[in-house]
Amino acid sequence: MATIKDIANKLGISVSTVSKGLNGASDISEALRQTVLDTAVEIGYTTKKMKKEEHKKLCVFIENMDYETNNQFGYEIILGFKQAAYRDKWDITVLPINPTFQMQEKYDTYMLKNGYRGGFLLGFSLQDNWMSQLNSTTIPTVLFDNYIRKNPNVAYVGTDSFEGIDIAMEHLISLGHKKIAFLNGSPNSMVSEQRMQAYLDSLAAHNLTFNEKLTAYGYYVAESAKYHIPSFLAEGATAILCGNDLIASGAIMECSMHGFRVPEDISVIGFDDLPISAHLDPPLTTIRQNRVELGKCGYFALSGLINHVSISRTMLHAQYIERASTAPAKEHKKTV
Amino acid sequence: MATIKDIANKLGISVSTVSKGLNGASDISEALRQTVLDTAVEIGYTTKKMKKEEHKKLCVFIENMDYETNNQFGYEIILGFKQAAYRDKWDITVLPINPTFQMQEKYDTYMLKNGYRGGFLLGFSLQDNWMSQLNSTTIPTVLFDNYIRKNPNVAYVGTDSFEGIDIAMEHLISLGHKKIAFLNGSPNSMVSEQRMQAYLDSLAAHNLTFNEKLTAYGYYVAESAKYHIPSFLAEGATAILCGNDLIASGAIMECSMHGFRVPEDISVIGFDDLPISAHLDPPLTTIRQNRVELGKCGYFALSGLINHVSISRTMLHAQYIERASTAPAKEHKKTV
Repeated sequence: MATIKDIANKLGISVSTVSKGLNGASDISEALRQTVLDTAVEIGYTTKKMKKEEHKKLCVFIENMDYETNNQFGYEIILGFKQAAYRDKWDITVLPINPTFQMQEKYDTYMLKNGYRGGFLLGFSLQDNWMSQLNSTTIPTVLFDNYIRKNPNVAYVGTDSFEGIDIAMEHLISLGHKKIAFLNGSPNSMVSEQRMQAYLDSLAAHNLTFNEKLTAYGYYVAESAKYHIPSFLAEGATAILCGNDLIASGAIMECSMHGFRVPEDISVIGFDDLPISAHLDPPLTTIRQNRVELGKCGYFALSGLINHVSISRTMLHAQYIERASTAPAKEHKKTV
Repeated sequence: MATIKDIANKLGISVSTVSKGLNGASDISEALRQTVLDTAVEIGYTTKKMKKEEHKKLCVFIENMDYETNNQFGYEIILGFKQAAYRDKWDITVLPINPTFQMQEKYDTYMLKNGYRGGFLLGFSLQDNWMSQLNSTTIPTVLFDNYIRKNPNVAYVGTDSFEGIDIAMEHLISLGHKKIAFLNGSPNSMVSEQRMQAYLDSLAAHNLTFNEKLTAYGYYVAESAKYHIPSFLAEGATAILCGNDLIASGAIMECSMHGFRVPEDISVIGFDDLPISAHLDPPLTTIRQNRVELGKCGYFALSGLINHVSISRTMLHAQYIERASTAPAKEHKKTV
């Protein structure tokens, strides 16, 4: 259980200053107060004030996404959401769920019964039971990376996949790459579909011909690589764009197993910028999704819906992170 | 010049309560305090507190859009923006500008010189001088209905045109309409392009064949109607979807001039839901853009950018407003 002392040590300030921050005293700056609150949230310290106000409850539902440790995708999204929500004195519950859970009770029923004013849903699949119920939910609900048409109570937040893929493609094309393979994530994901479309749009925009053998859907895990990279190499790919950083880490390993050096022989680009990505060999060039900001946007959108501002979607800019996994194109005749 | 008494009269509360609201006294509810502030903004009353804090300045630039009176498109957008911004103690300047103004000084220079922390741009055209400068601006900037790719300092807010057009098309198709004409707004507008694409997508989704003679770009004014409606009628259109309510008002007039009754002989749907639309004959069925909410979202996005939350776009849900200008399809053989 974290204490005020832990916050003081982490920030290198006195316990009394921390307590001023937590209690909203007037004689410390707003900026410092918010830093104290953010740190309290980060290390899991909650004041009695935070614990009170039972009527102000939001629930974060999470599925198909790791979030417990700070190197996992969901961790910072939830952190950002909490940091923004606590400033408005919301009490947040984070609930990992699964399809069975969704069969047991309707979404609206669960929310009302438990007194939740709004929900933030992470990692849901298009087939999930609750997803179809969201077409008609009356509960303010924000989806990460999923979109529900025509329900004024539901908003979608995410990173602009089109912008992200286009930035990656432009970078590879500027390095002379023409045979750019795309190893996408799971097929049952809206984001995967967007990124595939973005890949096709980008090829067309740069007058590059589409080669079906240079694209594949896998899953958002490293293991996907071994099933598809060999055929990409056989097809003469000089660069591989990956649906996320985990796939990219698998791709780098798979390429070297086939005697292709990254980036000398073949370039690899990821998506997400997970903490591990800077420590891969070579360090991964990727497209950053700022997950703390995504979490904050999730809260801003939910707060809007709760206040009857009918937000449909909020997208964040994708950010290009150049490291060492890309280089100028090099034709290769090697067979695999 | 508005006074505290004006606010009290408008809200039917005492002057002392109003002054408590304006001065943030603790013994009135937050809800009432915000109502008082919103009303102060609405009738143009500003407290000394609002006038102070010179360092916290935002500028709203407006072009090609009427906003002075509450029946004009821009009025409520600016109202919503101010209502949200004043709660965070921003000082707002509203500045109508033109292309010449943009030639005289660079956007960033103007903002820095005048101490503006961020800008909200309404009604700009894709050809505007400042639009190209926004690709590289370092000033937090939010565009209404315009999108700048890949600049983390620029966000776009608007209503989901795809959702809006699709809702209108589904309504007409459910009434048996197959020959649906689309009289769009100005060609040099991103929103016009989106709405045309949405119209095409919707036709395809409902297996309706596209007939080029049933679409045209005009301008966002009533006069557009007389140049295009006759050919739509000659082509056998049974419904006309319009780029905005002004075009729709012209379309209704033009149809009746050619002996077509709305909605008995032909259906007409607008877009925006301007205050006049409910008073047209017949009252116009349309797609509402909630302009107060758009203004508030404009501020939320700008506030995000200023706080380094790199928002790319925020879209609002479109809302279907059924009135009396649509009816079941009726084939007509009349020639014009």
